Amino acid sequence: MQAYSYTLNHSAEHVFSQAVKELYGDLVKPAVAHITETGFASDAKWSFNLSEEKLPEIEAKMAEIVSKALPIVKKEISCEDAEKLFKDNPYKLEWIKQFNEQQKTLTVYWTGDQYVDLCKGPHVSNTSEIKAFKLLSLSGVYWRGDSSNEQLTRVYGVAFSSQSELDKYLQLLEESKRRDHRKLGKELNLFVFSELVGSGLPLFTPKGAFLRSRLSEFSEELQRKAGFEQVWIPHLTKVDLYKVSGHWDKFGSELFLVSSQETSDQLVLKPMNCPHHAQIYASQIRSYKDLPIRYYETTTVYRDEKAGELSGLSRVRSITQDDAHIFCRMDQIESEFRNIMTMIKTLYNCLGLSFSARLSFRDQKRPEKYHGDDEIWCNAQGIIERVAQSLGLDYFISEGEAAFYGPKIDIMITDSLGRKWQCATQQLDFVQPKRFGLKYIDSDGTEKTPVMIHKALLGSIERFLSVYIEHTAGVLPSWLCYHQVAVIPISEEKHIEYANEVNVKLKENGIRTVLFDQAETVSNKIRKAQTEKYPYMIVLGDKEKESGTISLRLRTGEQIAGLSISQFIQKVKEIEQSKSHKIW
Amino acid sequence: MQAYSYTLNHSAEHVFSQAVKELYGDLVKPAVAHITETGFASDAKWSFNLSEEKLPEIEAKMAEIVSKALPIVKKEISCEDAEKLFKDNPYKLEWIKQFNEQQKTLTVYWTGDQYVDLCKGPHVSNTSEIKAFKLLSLSGVYWRGDSSNEQLTRVYGVAFSSQSELDKYLQLLEESKRRDHRKLGKELNLFVFSELVGSGLPLFTPKGAFLRSRLSEFSEELQRKAGFEQVWIPHLTKVDLYKVSGHWDKFGSELFLVSSQETSDQLVLKPMNCPHHAQIYASQIRSYKDLPIRYYETTTVYRDEKAGELSGLSRVRSITQDDAHIFCRMDQIESEFRNIMTMIKTLYNCLGLSFSARLSFRDQKRPEKYHGDDEIWCNAQGIIERVAQSLGLDYFISEGEAAFYGPKIDIMITDSLGRKWQCATQQLDFVQPKRFGLKYIDSDGTEKTPVMIHKALLGSIERFLSVYIEHTAGVLPSWLCYHQVAVIPISEEKHIEYANEVNVKLKENGIRTVLFDQAETVSNKIRKAQTEKYPYMIVLGDKEKESGTISLRLRTGEQIAGLSISQFIQKVKEIEQSKSHKIW
Repeated sequence: MQAYSYTLNHSAEHVFSQAVKELYGDLVKPAVAHITETGFASDAKWSFNLSEEKLPEIEAKMAEIVSKALPIVKKEISCEDAEKLFKDNPYKLEWIKQFNEQQKTLTVYWTGDQYVDLCKGPHVSNTSEIKAFKLLSLSGVYWRGDSSNEQLTRVYGVAFSSQSELDKYLQLLEESKRRDHRKLGKELNLFVFSELVGSGLPLFTPKGAFLRSRLSEFSEELQRKAGFEQVWIPHLTKVDLYKVSGHWDKFGSELFLVSSQETSDQLVLKPMNCPHHAQIYASQIRSYKDLPIRYYETTTVYRDEKAGELSGLSRVRSITQDDAHIFCRMDQIESEFRNIMTMIKTLYNCLGLSFSARLSFRDQKRPEKYHGDDEIWCNAQGIIERVAQSLGLDYFISEGEAAFYGPKIDIMITDSLGRKWQCATQQLDFVQPKRFGLKYIDSDGTEKTPVMIHKALLGSIERFLSVYIEHTAGVLPSWLCYHQVAVIPISEEKHIEYANEVNVKLKENGIRTVLFDQAETVSNKIRKAQTEKYPYMIVLGDKEKESGTISLRLRTGEQIAGLSISQFIQKVKEIEQSKSHKIW
Repeated sequence: MQAYSYTLNHSAEHVFSQAVKELYGDLVKPAVAHITETGFASDAKWSFNLSEEKLPEIEAKMAEIVSKALPIVKKEISCEDAEKLFKDNPYKLEWIKQFNEQQKTLTVYWTGDQYVDLCKGPHVSNTSEIKAFKLLSLSGVYWRGDSSNEQLTRVYGVAFSSQSELDKYLQLLEESKRRDHRKLGKELNLFVFSELVGSGLPLFTPKGAFLRSRLSEFSEELQRKAGFEQVWIPHLTKVDLYKVSGHWDKFGSELFLVSSQETSDQLVLKPMNCPHHAQIYASQIRSYKDLPIRYYETTTVYRDEKAGELSGLSRVRSITQDDAHIFCRMDQIESEFRNIMTMIKTLYNCLGLSFSARLSFRDQKRPEKYHGDDEIWCNAQGIIERVAQSLGLDYFISEGEAAFYGPKIDIMITDSLGRKWQCATQQLDFVQPKRFGLKYIDSDGTEKTPVMIHKALLGSIERFLSVYIEHTAGVLPSWLCYHQVAVIPISEEKHIEYANEVNVKLKENGIRTVLFDQAETVSNKIRKAQTEKYPYMIVLGDKEKESGTISLRLRTGEQIAGLSISQFIQKVKEIEQSKSHKIW
């Protein structure tokens, strides 16, 4: 991984502004800079239209400044002096006025004796330390982010302490653009958006719907085998349910409000499934012998996200979860956590995803932030760590990351670009069962309150898909492919009959195959199958027809000749059965 | 079926009121009567508490009046005379005043010379024609249905022209009470309601969710095999979509309105799926060679029903449909209709439901009510009738029942009580593709508009379940049972080991089985399995243990001894596979 540096990026931004000043003088008025570990952005008023073509010119000037090895030096300054120094820049004057009102000490940073900016630092001591940098892109922004203010131009850049790190970074950037799930979703025809339907509300085409179902069916199969029972709940619900559960007080503003024109009911779209599952639990008297009761359901919840935060499948307004809730006794927590973690391991192994487990515990110093007594928390956290240890998980403890209602395990997957994403989760809940007055009759005849465990294996299926499409660059395991095999006759005339025969045989065996019978060249057909990321291409010519065999071309480029059809069918079926992410 | 009669029920109501008057005099003031083909209801102010125990006394008095063979005679009357005649009855006076204002002619009916009521008839000519009658039940109602008015007591009754018809009717009534899906849903633990969730919004327990899934999976399997592709759409959508589709203008008041707190989007819960599926169609350029395109999806739509109309699963606010939409050329309609009708036949045959097909055509005399030109309609209706004929359907034509956008076939099933229900449907649509500007490139390179076909096999799954539960009285086919087999050891001590062995073997073979290992008598266990309508009970004692066989008891009462476990497994698997409604 790259060694990112806040300080280096900060100084690179100064060098950028100096270069702009040297090139364009008063035509550009710097307003404000934004620095992070992984880059910088510089907002300024440009009196001409800056285009991306200009960036190399600026980069060249920056290189010149860097090569001059100018010292970067901090100085304190009075507001009066600062006002004089920046008298031509209204943005800086606004900053100075604000500092003056707050009676803060002002500092400036000088780069050599040519360039100065209001700045609280920190910076590297010399421009020569900026070994590698790159200006990346442009965008329009508003002064202070307020759309009633003047529009400015933002330039994004990044700096590293070596060229090789910059190269790696640029490669990653290129790769993540190539893998952007929004782009791939379109290219592979997985999902579409419609202006009439609205933003954050994707519609899934047959290919995308297949992918969704396959993933959720796998998750459901794992759950059924692990003793979970499917239930079904409505998406529309009286707000009363969330008043009792406490979600209304906590997340009221994120809920979609639904009004009935025929009744006075105050309704909402469900933001969570746990309260419903609790209602099913509560519909009967339960005995300690009935526990654990495990309800699962692949169902959709709704969150009223800000329009600007919606993006592809990463952030949507209707979120489908492979959700489940377990109602159990305290002495059953350990086996339930083990049970869930085993499913997670199976699922992520099949999908070729490596993960680490974050054990989110309470902040020991502030026990008052959490509900439930000390003994229960210590006990539960001990159990969770024991499960993580005994299953040989790659885990770490995060103190203070627990929910107020209980500790949890969050699964962090690392994708092929090294990015980390939180997907699966399992959470203990000591609070909700009490709020709903859930009970069971214990062996001694007394009424007790069960513990609840929330779990999701994939989490949000939409978000998981966004991660998984980018992780795989759309090159999906065979069992997730809507079309697995392209059957390609070399000559339309001579081989179509045999190709058809092969195609039918594959279909009869449940293999998802397409006969490429268009009047096109073989290389075009292969290119098309390759673009659409078919795992298998079967190319059929004279040799194959005569010997009754097939020639196989994997999308990896590997070629296998002289396979019998039944050998191929058996292999593909085995892979489908094992849900392997390998295709041969 | 019974010969119901409006006139007979009307006269029976007069006889009822006369009997009440003879028995209780001024203690009861008749207010208004409600007559239908299938019964009567009489609202009155009772100055004492009427209980069901009193009904036989009234019935006896009614019988007396009937046996007197009193003539029932119509007479015109002036408002003045009517006011004198009914001076002690404030309800009748209110009616008279109303008639007076509307300057209508008043009529009364005299029964003999003892009893008279304001009435516009018609009536039978003599009380002796009322051969059989029965008072059924009581309820509290408000005068003129307005809850701000005085409360009255309603008595329900029914009359027939023969005792055998009444007997049949009462038997049917008893049977339909026994089969009430709301009662059975509770007893068999299929679904629950929660006050916090709201009315018309059932939650399905594991048993009920299993039943739902099995039905919808079967429907989906039929569709997949018939070339339909699954898609996925959000339940939440901008109202714009329904403005374009035309649903907003037609059904606006039945829609649930959704407000976003974060954006200004006007959203609704989807009342239909067709506009979404049209958006997926529209997301790509389509060629004549791509058609038919068939999208299916089991998904939920929402209707803002009046609270008073909600009932069990028959009328709910969140309605799950096994919906599908076909986009095709005119020349493909016939094969598509045949394709759908074949699925419907398979589905309903498996479920043991007989049906007839209503071909809903346009009203020939009012072609202006319908969209699309004459030729298209005649052609389409011809095709539909040809399909019905060639598939040997029991069909009838209903002129004037077509939708304005196209003709359709509605499937009417007849349940075991002889009641008819509309379930499956397939509808041609010439309008919506135009509204959404859907196109395909025809073989001659020109742009054409496809035809759309809407279809549902089960229709609303909730409503279908209400019908099917009542049809079967909850005695479901084995493949729809959450639990198929009860394994019952005769002695806890001596046979539990063998029972466990049998139970495990069945489970390994995918049979849904429960070991009845509670410390209870065998007859109690059998009674329990019988109440919960397990198709199969396996009773295991010394004989079975020694010979390694099983004794089978079907829920029909039939018993089969000396079966091998593998024989039983094979048979149950075959039945599961064929989705038969027979269990042996």
